[in-house]
Amino acid sequence: MKKAIFCILLLLAGALACIFIQRGARRMPDALSVIHNRKSVRHFTGAPVSRADLDIILKAAMAAPTAVNMQPWSFISITDRKILDSLSGVLPYAKMLDKAGAAIVVCAVPAKAFRSSAEIAVIDSTCAGENILLAVEAMGLGAVWTGVYPEKDRMDAVRSLLGVPDDIIPLNVIPIGYPTSQDKPKDKFKAKNIHWERW
Amino acid sequence: MKKAIFCILLLLAGALACIFIQRGARRMPDALSVIHNRKSVRHFTGAPVSRADLDIILKAAMAAPTAVNMQPWSFISITDRKILDSLSGVLPYAKMLDKAGAAIVVCAVPAKAFRSSAEIAVIDSTCAGENILLAVEAMGLGAVWTGVYPEKDRMDAVRSLLGVPDDIIPLNVIPIGYPTSQDKPKDKFKAKNIHWERW
Repeated sequence: MKKAIFCILLLLAGALACIFIQRGARRMPDALSVIHNRKSVRHFTGAPVSRADLDIILKAAMAAPTAVNMQPWSFISITDRKILDSLSGVLPYAKMLDKAGAAIVVCAVPAKAFRSSAEIAVIDSTCAGENILLAVEAMGLGAVWTGVYPEKDRMDAVRSLLGVPDDIIPLNVIPIGYPTSQDKPKDKFKAKNIHWERW
Repeated sequence: MKKAIFCILLLLAGALACIFIQRGARRMPDALSVIHNRKSVRHFTGAPVSRADLDIILKAAMAAPTAVNMQPWSFISITDRKILDSLSGVLPYAKMLDKAGAAIVVCAVPAKAFRSSAEIAVIDSTCAGENILLAVEAMGLGAVWTGVYPEKDRMDAVRSLLGVPDDIIPLNVIPIGYPTSQDKPKDKFKAKNIHWERW
């Protein structure tokens, strides 16, 4: 009897060790959880974001769908404190850049888009922008889409500060950083926004 | 000595049992893998897609970011074979609808958008569309964004067939189904599309 209990305890110890070892590894959360846990993070600790993490985020951005594989996008990746603070100064809805560790500006490039369409360049670049937000969430970082396009004054401010040519559309500024955890996801599900079969 | 070997074997047996049990559960792939494995699936087996799966996909759509939480989107979820085939007949780039198990039409609703902006309605709805593509990939299904907006003739065809009002923008038609596995993801990473600090 004592031997049987000893054996069961040893089996359980093996299982526990296995669970413990697996938890130690850097495990990425599953995609549906990330989609639902993504939130607009506006409060950052001020800690820097590594170049290695930005590389992972930018790779995720370029995995977005794009009409006829034209890839009409370009990304400005910013870690320079002075530039982040200058952007914070000129963009009323991006004040949190002063505590972000980095920022990515997603730019749409109409000349590269299918049929040189500005609308398609914006759609493809928006998909890249959503991938950035989801990759950031998956990595335990935080971000928020602060809109630039279609507001002319904001586009002018970003073009002027970052040297973006006139034929390129700065779509947004996405501050990225370590979240203080006070921002929470919103439940936006509404059954009335679904039509079945026809409108 | 024999007892020590016996104990080690029991520990290993416990660990193996733990791994075996975990593999049996339906595990979702991690978000970064899903972002990179998402591909335009244009070849489907013809098998139907369940209402339960469409509910999961539509919930993921509505978790998208949206300016000032206005949610200027609406979704037409289609499983009716006749409607799928009719859409396949009128949309030159959506012929694969004849083998898809379902389709979702993402609609942008300018009247509901921040500042009633059509551009912002399209951006928010595009983020919802990208969430749909990623949720589909995470679930082992396949999908492809077939563009409707900004092509006037395609928008007219979709509006007419599905009864979509004139002030609503049908952004795309996304056929969804079980992939035959012949479609593969593309590597679109280009270092030259990244600017560091300034354009």
